[in-house]
Amino acid sequence: MLAVDRRKNDFLYQQVIDLIRMEIDSGALRPGDRLPSLRRLAKNLDVSIPTVKQAYEELERQGHVESRPQSGFYVLARIRNALVRPPARASSEPVEVSCRNLVEQVYDGIHQPGVVPLGIANPSMARPAAKALHRTMKRVMARAEQRSVGYAPVAGEPGLQRQLAFRYLDLGGAVRPQEVVVTNGCQEALALALNAVARRGDVVAVESPTYSGTLELIESLGMLALEIETCPTEGLCLDALEHALGQQSIRACVFSSSLNNPLGSATDDDHRQRLVELLESYRVPLIEDDVYGDLRFDGRRGKPAQFFSRRGLVLTAGSFSKTVAPGYRIGWLLPGRFTDQVLKLKRALSYSSGLLQQLTLAEFMGSGEYDRHLRQLRPVLKLNCERMAALVAEHFPANTRISQPAGGSVLWLEMTSNFDSAAYFQRALDAGISVAPGAIFSPGNRYRHFVRLSFGHPWGDRLAQAVRTLGELAST
Amino acid sequence: MLAVDRRKNDFLYQQVIDLIRMEIDSGALRPGDRLPSLRRLAKNLDVSIPTVKQAYEELERQGHVESRPQSGFYVLARIRNALVRPPARASSEPVEVSCRNLVEQVYDGIHQPGVVPLGIANPSMARPAAKALHRTMKRVMARAEQRSVGYAPVAGEPGLQRQLAFRYLDLGGAVRPQEVVVTNGCQEALALALNAVARRGDVVAVESPTYSGTLELIESLGMLALEIETCPTEGLCLDALEHALGQQSIRACVFSSSLNNPLGSATDDDHRQRLVELLESYRVPLIEDDVYGDLRFDGRRGKPAQFFSRRGLVLTAGSFSKTVAPGYRIGWLLPGRFTDQVLKLKRALSYSSGLLQQLTLAEFMGSGEYDRHLRQLRPVLKLNCERMAALVAEHFPANTRISQPAGGSVLWLEMTSNFDSAAYFQRALDAGISVAPGAIFSPGNRYRHFVRLSFGHPWGDRLAQAVRTLGELAST
Repeated sequence: MLAVDRRKNDFLYQQVIDLIRMEIDSGALRPGDRLPSLRRLAKNLDVSIPTVKQAYEELERQGHVESRPQSGFYVLARIRNALVRPPARASSEPVEVSCRNLVEQVYDGIHQPGVVPLGIANPSMARPAAKALHRTMKRVMARAEQRSVGYAPVAGEPGLQRQLAFRYLDLGGAVRPQEVVVTNGCQEALALALNAVARRGDVVAVESPTYSGTLELIESLGMLALEIETCPTEGLCLDALEHALGQQSIRACVFSSSLNNPLGSATDDDHRQRLVELLESYRVPLIEDDVYGDLRFDGRRGKPAQFFSRRGLVLTAGSFSKTVAPGYRIGWLLPGRFTDQVLKLKRALSYSSGLLQQLTLAEFMGSGEYDRHLRQLRPVLKLNCERMAALVAEHFPANTRISQPAGGSVLWLEMTSNFDSAAYFQRALDAGISVAPGAIFSPGNRYRHFVRLSFGHPWGDRLAQAVRTLGELAST
Repeated sequence: MLAVDRRKNDFLYQQVIDLIRMEIDSGALRPGDRLPSLRRLAKNLDVSIPTVKQAYEELERQGHVESRPQSGFYVLARIRNALVRPPARASSEPVEVSCRNLVEQVYDGIHQPGVVPLGIANPSMARPAAKALHRTMKRVMARAEQRSVGYAPVAGEPGLQRQLAFRYLDLGGAVRPQEVVVTNGCQEALALALNAVARRGDVVAVESPTYSGTLELIESLGMLALEIETCPTEGLCLDALEHALGQQSIRACVFSSSLNNPLGSATDDDHRQRLVELLESYRVPLIEDDVYGDLRFDGRRGKPAQFFSRRGLVLTAGSFSKTVAPGYRIGWLLPGRFTDQVLKLKRALSYSSGLLQQLTLAEFMGSGEYDRHLRQLRPVLKLNCERMAALVAEHFPANTRISQPAGGSVLWLEMTSNFDSAAYFQRALDAGISVAPGAIFSPGNRYRHFVRLSFGHPWGDRLAQAVRTLGELAST
């Protein structure tokens, strides 16, 4: 039975899209079938005709239906691309990381003026919060003129620590404000955490594939990375981790347990609890990169791994960079039992983080604007994801496999095994488009034939055209 | 011949003060002498009577003269305190640093609400630039709304890199914008620099006394510190350094060659050139902490040590934290031949620095407001320095020795040898005043009987009263 729910946060037209897609996926509507007329569906669902029209046009953009003049909208035949495959179980030996030269080229490419930046994961840009943030910041400037240019305390502005603690309280965990250390983005949070628990030469377990910034950090600190198989749908493979723990001396793990980048796979609380129990039974600290935790499309938010910790060996890192303001460089770390070490490191390595931004974000959270922004951002990201996946399905080679992310802002594409993503990166850049080549997501070079595309942008023709162009480049 | 110069940036009344003090110092005016009447001096100098009155009142506050009702102003007898003594030449062995617990107490004390913060060196607060900065930031927000919340490039916002390069050009050195790496304050600049040139276990030479943040950093990185004698007036003792280079394997030096903190001693270009030549002959990298370079009272600005480098082994670090906005957390590093390593480290350790602040500071420099601000800040700091030194001379024990800083925002006081600055720190804090105990400025605990006081505050009764209270506490 088709029905929309006005209490849900999704736009009505998005609900209409979901209903039609469900009908297509279930086989109720088959290729060649005509969709109900605008008028009829509007009446049935008790929504306006323009709402249905918007939904149908969007479904057409996504490649699910086509409009035929004077006739209506018809369901298209469509090749459903398989999910990205789990990687073949490769031998897991710790390796020195040396991906930085390619990473450097990628970032240079991203910052070239005029390039369509599909290589950078920047979800907040899909629905920018700049106007609301600036409004808040101006209030802060007026209220705390002198103070706002002064030093913040090393651990962070107490108002922001409090807001962050409240948030964890909403998730059912008791975090005291003074247990939150404010950092220069999630990257510094990870750096402080790794510095606190491991040293040069130590082995650090990472997901495979894993975020390139984590690998760069491990390389910078002279540590070794050990890749642990990670499933495109269920997240880190606990069996593989247990096997590795038995074989190797692992000093620490850095896992993005809520939502993997680039896979987009999410894990549930039960998985996270088993992960923590396993690691703590081996006394191995877990650094949880939770930077995408607030960006699951369904708005569900698992408990941070730290909530399941009994020994205080879990450090959870988060950030505002993916949700509102990358350029504010404000993240945070819950350092568990390592709080004293982390505070000393923070003071020594960068003293403190920007106060004006901290005051602004504290107010932005306290006023409810942050949550409102997240509720608006998630459906936009979900829609962008579907649009981009549809374009990839249409324009990339037929054997391209596409991830089905549970959130975040990236698609992870598996090409044929002889595909060279580093060369592809260069060709795309020559065409004015940046992509993230798979090679940078594995120290063992397991993902040479993968490409990561970001849909964290305001949707538009330029973006759609870029994906089409990328498809052509991948086909030649 | 008394004369004021209206083209100088000093306030006229400050020039009058300088003239009278010169007369007193030279013996032309002696204790008990009556100063010229307001009317007469105003006529002679061609300034207004209120200007002379302001100068006389200030001289009274500084303890140089006293006013006698219906009679005028009279020169006071005054004990001139000797300069801080150069430290006795102690045996120089590299030592593990472990000053952090005391440093922690100091910073906790500073951030306690209601405490008079004489323990923190925060010169920009003596004449805050918040209003002008906020005006600039609002313009940037309006002009670059979306962009300003986004990621800055890893090396920094090109506009700011350019402004910083221009500044070095003014000093006669050719620095290309891409040779400037923007950092999270000077502390991160030092951290990147040390990480680029040295490793755990290496020996790092520092000035004695040296800034506690440098020692904390060395401790965090597991390096050893070697103290090199530093003269209260001429800066680092080159003979002592040469001796140490011959004896030890020194991996790097961190010196604040333009203006030492806490001594306030300045060095000239010739000294800096000989320093660089000496170090490069031993192939030892020099990390130059130039954070106070713009804050010499006389506005003179030596060439950075890097300009004298022939081998590219000098890395120069600077910041806006001491001049305009500590809370912006924007500093920079000229990494010399280590630019590639430093950029990799920057990306791995914190990715990039705040964009909105960088755009704001670039505009603040480009419009000339930064230089204007410096011209206004320096005389305020100089005046505060004289006021505080006068109060210390009056209220501290007679055998207290006082530094005569060439700039910056701190006085360095040497007490009798049995004085315990850590205990004093606690007693001062109990009285609602923070000071920086000498112990935190030396890994070898050479300065246990020293105290550092900051005059980087808007002057007022509360501050003056705090110095009097500190004097009483030091006398009991």
